[in-house]
Amino acid sequence: MRTGASAIIIGNEVLTAKVTEANGSHLISRLRERGVLLHSVHFVLDDVDAIVEALQLARRKAKWVFTSGGIGPTHDDVTVRAVALALGRPVVRLPEMEALVKLQYGEGATAEAMRLADAPEGAELLYQAGARYPVLACEDVYLLPGVPQLFKHQLETVLARLPVTAVNIQVLYLSASEAEIARVLDQVALAMPDVAIGSYPNFDPEQDYRVKLTIEHASAAPVAEAVQRLEAVLPKGCLLRRE
Amino acid sequence: MRTGASAIIIGNEVLTAKVTEANGSHLISRLRERGVLLHSVHFVLDDVDAIVEALQLARRKAKWVFTSGGIGPTHDDVTVRAVALALGRPVVRLPEMEALVKLQYGEGATAEAMRLADAPEGAELLYQAGARYPVLACEDVYLLPGVPQLFKHQLETVLARLPVTAVNIQVLYLSASEAEIARVLDQVALAMPDVAIGSYPNFDPEQDYRVKLTIEHASAAPVAEAVQRLEAVLPKGCLLRRE
Repeated sequence: MRTGASAIIIGNEVLTAKVTEANGSHLISRLRERGVLLHSVHFVLDDVDAIVEALQLARRKAKWVFTSGGIGPTHDDVTVRAVALALGRPVVRLPEMEALVKLQYGEGATAEAMRLADAPEGAELLYQAGARYPVLACEDVYLLPGVPQLFKHQLETVLARLPVTAVNIQVLYLSASEAEIARVLDQVALAMPDVAIGSYPNFDPEQDYRVKLTIEHASAAPVAEAVQRLEAVLPKGCLLRRE
Repeated sequence: MRTGASAIIIGNEVLTAKVTEANGSHLISRLRERGVLLHSVHFVLDDVDAIVEALQLARRKAKWVFTSGGIGPTHDDVTVRAVALALGRPVVRLPEMEALVKLQYGEGATAEAMRLADAPEGAELLYQAGARYPVLACEDVYLLPGVPQLFKHQLETVLARLPVTAVNIQVLYLSASEAEIARVLDQVALAMPDVAIGSYPNFDPEQDYRVKLTIEHASAAPVAEAVQRLEAVLPKGCLLRRE
């Protein structure tokens, strides 16, 4: 069963350092705040094949896929076509979107402007207050714009429809090295495979710890149990503090 | 023929917003500065299957693949195993690396510490001044550490071995909208498919332009020709300035 989310950030400008990418990190924070599992964030060029491959890979695991960018009217905007291809649907022109394009550009809207009304067949429009265009969604692929202000706005429209999950986390700071604790971490991680245990060495001499452990689960009880197990087997005296 | 590079940034901590990711953006800047084409940057979890799939996809296009993270001694460090799987090679212990691990941890190094000496069979070690361990490389997959200071250092060791390419770019700032220029952009992009033409709308009212065009190629002459063609067909008076 597919769970959680993935994101595909589309645009040559990101991978050629022409802009400082903001949408990926914003999405990571917001999904975390809402407890949505995020499998991957994939930055790709404005290339139909690359986007199709990224979509197909993302959809093998993720229930919800967000794309960022590539939905304007110019030659380098190929996201709609790529999503349609990945989903095996033709691209069609949506009358509701045509009406919105004409609202913006007038009855004399150019053929290129009308491309903004194209979508994979069967796409759904998620209307939202304070935005010129609705979010385009198709089989839980959400086509968001690359412009950060618009991306943020449309992301919230989608997030409001997804379930919120609690995240329970405890953090342990240790004075021991990763090599010294690896064996007991293995034991606990193996005994409680559903609990996510992260181990992060510190190389900053201004910090007092050598390893930070994160212990995480949707419920509080398994986190408490894993912490208890860890405290029982970690080298004596190496626990500096818990957060 | 495979060309350019791709990167795979590995770690639950990135996708759960526990750290602000720095390696991806640093790599994007440095590859750009050296004119290395970058196809993709893929953030994935500490999961063998996810890393294997990301590697296989990246290697279909990219000649050089950089991984970041997952090469420590703990249970969540699975990059070596995943790279070995993706390349169809067994994991072996490298005597040269064993010697370095013992230098760090002494003859009593734990079995877990010795995992740092594991590598895909046939891996090459790229030695570098000022670092405890060499870079692990195998079939042009470079396994870099996730800790930003170490990542930066090891990235330079690899970059010093890759060819440097010039990037020629011109930027045009326009007062016309994307919809108004899309048709002529199509024409020029179609006529000169090797020139990368990017079109970026501006939504910041503090800026004076509506669209920024970037015109880019390894050589200067095609850039100059594309700019000349664009200037000839863009709506009269819409070019604010060239950079």
